[in-house]
Amino acid sequence: MNSEVAVIMGSTSDWETMKYACDSLEELEIKYEKRVISAHRTPDLMFEFAEKARERGIKVIIAGAGGAAHLPGMVAAKTTLPVIGVPVQSKALNGLDSLLSIVQMPGGIPVATTAIGKAGATNAGLLAAQMLSMYDKKVAERLEKKRQHMTETVLESSERLG
Amino acid sequence: MNSEVAVIMGSTSDWETMKYACDSLEELEIKYEKRVISAHRTPDLMFEFAEKARERGIKVIIAGAGGAAHLPGMVAAKTTLPVIGVPVQSKALNGLDSLLSIVQMPGGIPVATTAIGKAGATNAGLLAAQMLSMYDKKVAERLEKKRQHMTETVLESSERLG
Amino acid sequence: MNSEVAVIMGSTSDWETMKYACDSLEELEIKYEKRVISAHRTPDLMFEFAEKARERGIKVIIAGAGGAAHLPGMVAAKTTLPVIGVPVQSKALNGLDSLLSIVQMPGGIPVATTAIGKAGATNAGLLAAQMLSMYDKKVAERLEKKRQHMTETVLESSERLG
Amino acid sequence: MNSEVAVIMGSTSDWETMKYACDSLEELEIKYEKRVISAHRTPDLMFEFAEKARERGIKVIIAGAGGAAHLPGMVAAKTTLPVIGVPVQSKALNGLDSLLSIVQMPGGIPVATTAIGKAGATNAGLLAAQMLSMYDKKVAERLEKKRQHMTETVLESSERLG
Amino acid sequence: MNSEVAVIMGSTSDWETMKYACDSLEELEIKYEKRVISAHRTPDLMFEFAEKARERGIKVIIAGAGGAAHLPGMVAAKTTLPVIGVPVQSKALNGLDSLLSIVQMPGGIPVATTAIGKAGATNAGLLAAQMLSMYDKKVAERLEKKRQHMTETVLESSERLG
Amino acid sequence: MNSEVAVIMGSTSDWETMKYACDSLEELEIKYEKRVISAHRTPDLMFEFAEKARERGIKVIIAGAGGAAHLPGMVAAKTTLPVIGVPVQSKALNGLDSLLSIVQMPGGIPVATTAIGKAGATNAGLLAAQMLSMYDKKVAERLEKKRQHMTETVLESSERLG
Amino acid sequence: MNSEVAVIMGSTSDWETMKYACDSLEELEIKYEKRVISAHRTPDLMFEFAEKARERGIKVIIAGAGGAAHLPGMVAAKTTLPVIGVPVQSKALNGLDSLLSIVQMPGGIPVATTAIGKAGATNAGLLAAQMLSMYDKKVAERLEKKRQHMTETVLESSERLG
Amino acid sequence: MNSEVAVIMGSTSDWETMKYACDSLEELEIKYEKRVISAHRTPDLMFEFAEKARERGIKVIIAGAGGAAHLPGMVAAKTTLPVIGVPVQSKALNGLDSLLSIVQMPGGIPVATTAIGKAGATNAGLLAAQMLSMYDKKVAERLEKKRQHMTETVLESSERLG
Repeated sequence: MNSEVAVIMGSTSDWETMKYACDSLEELEIKYEKRVISAHRTPDLMFEFAEKARERGIKVIIAGAGGAAHLPGMVAAKTTLPVIGVPVQSKALNGLDSLLSIVQMPGGIPVATTAIGKAGATNAGLLAAQMLSMYDKKVAERLEKKRQHMTETVLESSERLG
Repeated sequence: MNSEVAVIMGSTSDWETMKYACDSLEELEIKYEKRVISAHRTPDLMFEFAEKARERGIKVIIAGAGGAAHLPGMVAAKTTLPVIGVPVQSKALNGLDSLLSIVQMPGGIPVATTAIGKAGATNAGLLAAQMLSMYDKKVAERLEKKRQHMTETVLESSERLG
Repeated sequence: MNSEVAVIMGSTSDWETMKYACDSLEELEIKYEKRVISAHRTPDLMFEFAEKARERGIKVIIAGAGGAAHLPGMVAAKTTLPVIGVPVQSKALNGLDSLLSIVQMPGGIPVATTAIGKAGATNAGLLAAQMLSMYDKKVAERLEKKRQHMTETVLESSERLG
Repeated sequence: MNSEVAVIMGSTSDWETMKYACDSLEELEIKYEKRVISAHRTPDLMFEFAEKARERGIKVIIAGAGGAAHLPGMVAAKTTLPVIGVPVQSKALNGLDSLLSIVQMPGGIPVATTAIGKAGATNAGLLAAQMLSMYDKKVAERLEKKRQHMTETVLESSERLG
Repeated sequence: MNSEVAVIMGSTSDWETMKYACDSLEELEIKYEKRVISAHRTPDLMFEFAEKARERGIKVIIAGAGGAAHLPGMVAAKTTLPVIGVPVQSKALNGLDSLLSIVQMPGGIPVATTAIGKAGATNAGLLAAQMLSMYDKKVAERLEKKRQHMTETVLESSERLG
Repeated sequence: MNSEVAVIMGSTSDWETMKYACDSLEELEIKYEKRVISAHRTPDLMFEFAEKARERGIKVIIAGAGGAAHLPGMVAAKTTLPVIGVPVQSKALNGLDSLLSIVQMPGGIPVATTAIGKAGATNAGLLAAQMLSMYDKKVAERLEKKRQHMTETVLESSERLG
Repeated sequence: MNSEVAVIMGSTSDWETMKYACDSLEELEIKYEKRVISAHRTPDLMFEFAEKARERGIKVIIAGAGGAAHLPGMVAAKTTLPVIGVPVQSKALNGLDSLLSIVQMPGGIPVATTAIGKAGATNAGLLAAQMLSMYDKKVAERLEKKRQHMTETVLESSERLG
Repeated sequence: MNSEVAVIMGSTSDWETMKYACDSLEELEIKYEKRVISAHRTPDLMFEFAEKARERGIKVIIAGAGGAAHLPGMVAAKTTLPVIGVPVQSKALNGLDSLLSIVQMPGGIPVATTAIGKAGATNAGLLAAQMLSMYDKKVAERLEKKRQHMTETVLESSERLG
């Protein structure tokens, strides 16, 4: 079966963050592919990837990048599939540059932006699953179960604290 | 036919921004409903709305809010549908507070955040349509057409500039 | 005797910060309870807790959270007791996101915000005591003594420096 | 009857903001006094005011200031009553300087900080009332009524939007 | 004769800023062309433009954009000519987002970034001329004259002040 | 002989920074005293110190503080001697809060602010010496010599680099 | 008689701000001169001015500049007289760039920085007077009187408010 | 043969960053010289260097500095050669101060600014090469090859990830 979600990142150094997106997808049993595609170093590949994503059966694209993070926005410019952007924490400005470069898109080309770093990557995987759950009941049920599990974990941790 | 998208906002003063989300949805012929729901002033209504959204047939929720903008994140905490958050431009901090309050969600509860203000609201409508286009070919075609139209508009404006 | 102050936090990882609020309360001999309650992962529990706090005899609620820190504001939306919000230092943005998410509340629902991190947690406990001291002379006296002790400590440290 | 709340501000130009604190207090029928006291231009008066506040029957102090806003923190250094700080929006930095100067207090001397500008002033009045409501049932009831009224206002505004 | 400099911008609304780049070029008698090319709305045109710029005789590209300003960086990814990026002042964040999106490029793909807004556009034109002056003595002389004129203007203005 | 400069700081933890101010003063053979004086924990001592500084022969006051750094501004409010403020680097916000709390003084009460941290402390000592050098030729000569020494150090380091 | 203070600014557009420095000096009867000197457009004049300032009898230099505000720091690099830097409010970044460019000087070359804009300019004049007051009793007395007048003004304004 | 590029920096501590500019130049076989020149500690040397750069055959100047980073802008004020500014990461403010001090130049004196830190230094070397490539085909070819190599490296890293 084909991948429903594609997880791409600008550099292998982003993997440390983006693996959390893959963890979310695996936990929810969603088929995905992962690739390094750089907006600045492989621009043609990026465009080709984005153009063909829908016809290849991809339904959601998750793109992580740091600094002047152009990958999510440029992929979004070449497809009408939903693109989720994950701001990777940058060295000097702690990901504020990544965040603004991804989220402040002009009217016409949306990028669904998540939080800076690990939490954002985790949530990118969940958000992709939520989009799939709009039409896929099994994914919806798995998401519901995961929520219940999260609730229980908090309740237990509260007891340990007391 | 039921609404597929719900557009909610924390206060009527957010309408000036959030109407651009509705414009996008209308342009793409997507059924939607719009409501004022305040995280802080109508918390119970917010929870009830979020809990019942999926069973009512809503597929995507767009939530706009400013300042300590808790509406998108709290709605996201009560549904597993995708929630799009629009940071409304605030008076003192120009929407930086709205943006951070919406986008910096903890791992587990994603909010798909768009740009501050009008562009973000426009894109929230488009993003909702893109999610629907994952399974709805007609919406996909309308999105494609809109893109082509945008491209042509730029080309024409360039000629006028020259 | 019942707790007069409730110290809640969004996650066990916040305990490292929030324990300083408890230290302040213990030093001033104020009865308190402490719990993990997550705005995003246990939203119903949060609402139930906030709704019943006053009738249970709680007089002040201290809530610590980081990132898109919705816990203090959402608890404040469900009670008319004073709520003190402590911005926990976040990884990427050093607690600036936590601070703005907590302090920038809309008119109608106040949160008494303290400093980011340890100092803010220490002060949240003291602030709760100051509120109780409005009607409780013993607490007022203990606060006064603590102040004198702080003054003396500075004077001694100055001598050591010289 | 004596004032229970004192509203002070660093300059008459802060009145445009701080009047909203007084509006909240009047709406909730709380006795208050208001004065211009400048940390920098009337430091001795400030200390005298703070030192005598508790014995004069004041229960809560609301202090508004902008820029290097030292008034709330310095008053807090001279009393153990709860002090609420309102960051007034400054010209160049939009109140970010006011906010940080007020909220980032060192451990030992808390200031209960509210939002920048009008919303923060409104909430400072409400927060003072909430503190009084810890022991004053009438104030608690008025606060509860005000909340219900706020909820109804949102519901009505939502109907008008639809 | 062919254009030596190409001035491109993401939208006609950027012209208000980018005309100052053209003013500098005209003042220094440098041949240039100007076009609207949008990274997000005309991505293929952008790539085609960048790929062919060197063979068409263009020596320097000036690209202005605002918000998530991807145009300068993406053009730079498709050419090895020097690309000058001008951050156009954005509505909500005053061009801080534009600046960071342009300047924080990853190692390998440089963008020569100038100041936000009008001064940056003026300087982009001058910087392009300075690059040409490396090999073109006439341009170097005109730049030198312009500097002397600037100096004299300051001296005169100082006399009027006194 | 009496001290001409007083170096004060809000806490012993500031000594790690403020010792660099003392180093500068010692290097330039200027008599100084050093003390821990806290705006928030020893407010009365602070006022007494500031009030008597001129009559005790102090000519310049150097005050270092972090976070909501009120010490320099409040000392300045109680003396007409020049007060130099050193923003000590804070934990969460890296001294941006300290800087804004010190530098953004209202018209009427100046604080001569230096850089955040070590460089600012070093420069505070130098700045005090420069003020003394307005009337003290020996200090002026020592400052001139120190400058020449700094220049030579740079020239030597450049040779080592080459 | 010679000027004791020199007020310089990078451009005539800075006069709107820097006139407040002159107002302070005039109010305190201090002789001063004022000039437009641009770090970037008249660098040689700047160096000549700074080098000769002390021998010409200047005791303090006040320098105002905006954006990448190099004037105060570069003048300070060429004299050992105290240099006061006034950050002029810039268009895009509201003077935050001016402030950081002026205040963040490296160890060795201090600039006494005041607040952004009008308040900072007013205070620059006062600070210069305070430096002169170290040895000039008449200036010290005038400063003292001005303080008393400021205190009285606040007291009167408080009465009008009540 | 003479150096075509001069790499200067404010202090030997900047070498850790600026060596990456030299690495880029060496990789592209471009003759360069490197020196420590401090705007604040060797201002005369800086002016002399800048004034003579063009006649010595230098074509591009790369200047790195941190904090109140005046070196690039002041060199630019004394030459009409293109000046590339590299913001060195500062301790307290992570290079945001360096970036703003370098990039926010007034109209008339451009500085071609790159990213904060290592990536910016790497790119400064490349940008200098790109400027030389405007007239030097060999450099253009080397740049093209380097780009191809970068592309291949990404493709290989993507395979390893999969």
